Formats: sequence, C-alpha cells, structure tokens
Amino acid sequence: MEVLEGTKSCHISIFLCSALLLLGVLGPIPAHGRLQIKQKPNPDNAVATARWLVSQNLWGVLSTISSELGGVPFGNVVSFSDGLPGEGHGIPYFYLTALDPTARDALKNMSSSLTLSEVPLGSCGKIDPENPTCAKLTLNGKLKLVDVKTPEGKFALSALFAKHAEMKNWPKEHNFQIFKLDIEHIFLIDWFGGPKPLTPYQYFNPGK
Amino acid sequence: MEVLEGTKSCHISIFLCSALLLLGVLGPIPAHGRLQIKQKPNPDNAVATARWLVSQNLWGVLSTISSELGGVPFGNVVSFSDGLPGEGHGIPYFYLTALDPTARDALKNMSSSLTLSEVPLGSCGKIDPENPTCAKLTLNGKLKLVDVKTPEGKFALSALFAKHAEMKNWPKEHNFQIFKLDIEHIFLIDWFGGPKPLTPYQYFNPGK
Repeated sequence: MEVLEGTKSCHISIFLCSALLLLGVLGPIPAHGRLQIKQKPNPDNAVATARWLVSQNLWGVLSTISSELGGVPFGNVVSFSDGLPGEGHGIPYFYLTALDPTARDALKNMSSSLTLSEVPLGSCGKIDPENPTCAKLTLNGKLKLVDVKTPEGKFALSALFAKHAEMKNWPKEHNFQIFKLDIEHIFLIDWFGGPKPLTPYQYFNPGK
Repeated sequence: MEVLEGTKSCHISIFLCSALLLLGVLGPIPAHGRLQIKQKPNPDNAVATARWLVSQNLWGVLSTISSELGGVPFGNVVSFSDGLPGEGHGIPYFYLTALDPTARDALKNMSSSLTLSEVPLGSCGKIDPENPTCAKLTLNGKLKLVDVKTPEGKFALSALFAKHAEMKNWPKEHNFQIFKLDIEHIFLIDWFGGPKPLTPYQYFNPGK
C-alpha cells in the first residue's frame, strides 16, 4: 500500500512537473516579431542575412518624405510581408490606408526606405542594437501601389494575410491598399567593418 | 529492491524534469528592448504613453535625408537614451559616429525623425504591430550635436552608458559623438481614431 502511495505521489509529481514544463516551453504569448525565429545566417553571407531579416521580421519602419511637414523625413511603424511564412521572396509588401501619412506621402513622392533590425528576432541577445554584429538593414527604393486584381496583388495579399491574420478584418471603409517597395539600394550591417556591398540583383538572386 | 529501483527512477525522472523546467523558466537571453517592461499607461493619456515609449525603448529608427542617395529618406537602427533607467527626461540622446551615414546626413541636414514601437516592450502580445492599439510614436525635429563637455553632454553620456553599457568600450578611433533630437512635432497613435494631438510643450510638461 505504501509502495502504491509512493508510486502514486511520484506519478503526481511527474505529472505536475511535466505540466509546468509544458507551460514553460509554450511560454507566454510572444511579442510580434519573435514568432518565427530561425537560425541566423553566417554574417559572411550578406545575401542570406538580408533575405533572412526581411523574411523573418513582421514589422519595420517605413520612412517617407513628409508632404505635410514640409519635406522632412517621416518614419512610421508598419507591418509587412515578403511571402508566405518560410517562403520569403524578398519584395516587401504593405497594407496601408491613405488615412495614414505614409501612404499619403508615397502617393506624392515614392522615395522611401524600409528599416529592419535583428533585435525583434531575438538573436542579438545582450548585444546592443547599435552594435554592428546585431544585424540591421535599410532598403531604399520606390513605394508603389499594387493592383489587388493582378497576380502580384493576389500574391501580396495572401502573403500579408498569412503573416498578419487580423488584416483580413480591418475596416473596409479605411480603403487599405497594397504597396510594394521597389528596391533600388541596400544598406546592410551585420559585422564589423562597415556596410556590406550588396546589390538588388544579388539580393534577388541568391547563389548567383 | 524493485521498490528501491522504482523510487530511484522516480527521483531521476523528477530531477530531469525539474532541470528542464528550470531551463524553461530561465529561458534564452532576452532580446534588447524587452528588459524594462513596465505597465503601459492608459491610452487616453497621450503624454504618459509617449514618454513611456521613449523611456522604455532602448532603440528605434532614426530617419534622415540621405546626402549620399540624393535626398531620399534613410532610416537607420540606432540606440538611444532619454535618461537613467526609470528616470526618462524625454529628450532622446544618441551616440553616433560619422563613419555611419546617419551622422553624416545630420551634419548636413538636421531634419530627422525618431520612430518607436510598443512591440519591443512586449506589451502588444498578439496584436499586430500596425494595429492602432499597439502604440507607435514618431518624433520629428532637428538632430543636433551636443558638446560632451557641457552639463547636458555629461548628462547625455551618463544616460546613454546607463542603458547601453557596451558603448563605454566602443572604439575611440571611431570618434562617437553625442547627438540629441530637438523635438518639433509629435505623431502618436495608441488607439483607434487617428493620431493623438500632442505638442512638444505637453510632452515635456506632463500634468500641465
């Protein structure tokens, strides 16, 4: 009987411990941008690092020339997607409304930059966000409207909704439209020694 | 003997389970910007929300007019501090080197914006980063050099080093300098209904 009790209490202990362990593994609801952490590419591989930052990050800062503040730079927090989860294609797509200054700016002056950090992916650890080994990427180019009726528009919408499910339910009357960043210049720092030389062609043609 | 073996294996199971549990509790080293999470102010309180975003975030995106890319906006990931931990004063100070385009741009055209999100603070949970209830702040103004020998320079340096300890050891030959954002315009979204009206005077004078 004592043995049975012992075995029973042992099973209860293991059950409780396992339950807590499971909770620990699942953890609290993670903040956005920490949901798809995958292994960081080798910093020597600039193309892979840039593509990784774009495919893994869920949000960034989109900077435009402010038409309402007299031509000064205006950075805005935006969500984006470059494809289905794990299938990044490199082109950042956005879901913006002209109720927001960024879309209004882009419709007057397409010049913009999308800036991403490795920090939201969780792999910088205790390294300072400004430390060159904590990767940062700035994509400059033209922020262009994408017609939702085109194949690219349909792809962009599925890519956005796959990573930002709630967008499907955003108010129709806000007239959200799809924009894309047509990349013309890439600024990547992922190690000491200054920005890595990286062209849009190299970015879109890994391994070539 | 069988009972002893059973008890032994039970203890081993609990030990292993507890060890894994402890690992789960400690978790991986947290990403920067998630170290000082404090309670989010009521969204009705625009001043408190803006000051909270500035005092709690450790990094943001500083956008300038690129002198090297022909006047287009250029956002860069930077670390900043507005005071000692828990003692934010509202003015963002930066530690930048002219080896980086942002400082070079600012020395030619001071117009810039600092953009912050609530996401790195961890309190948006599953809410999308572009959802208006996940707070976002864009401070526009002039990015100005601060003389390290002045009282403000000394304060800025202590504020930066208190939140970014490794800055103390950054290479002297890189000639890092202190910059401040002289805030002229504030764009805050922390709820539905568009940006909150918030002046620099209100931002610097909470409760008035």
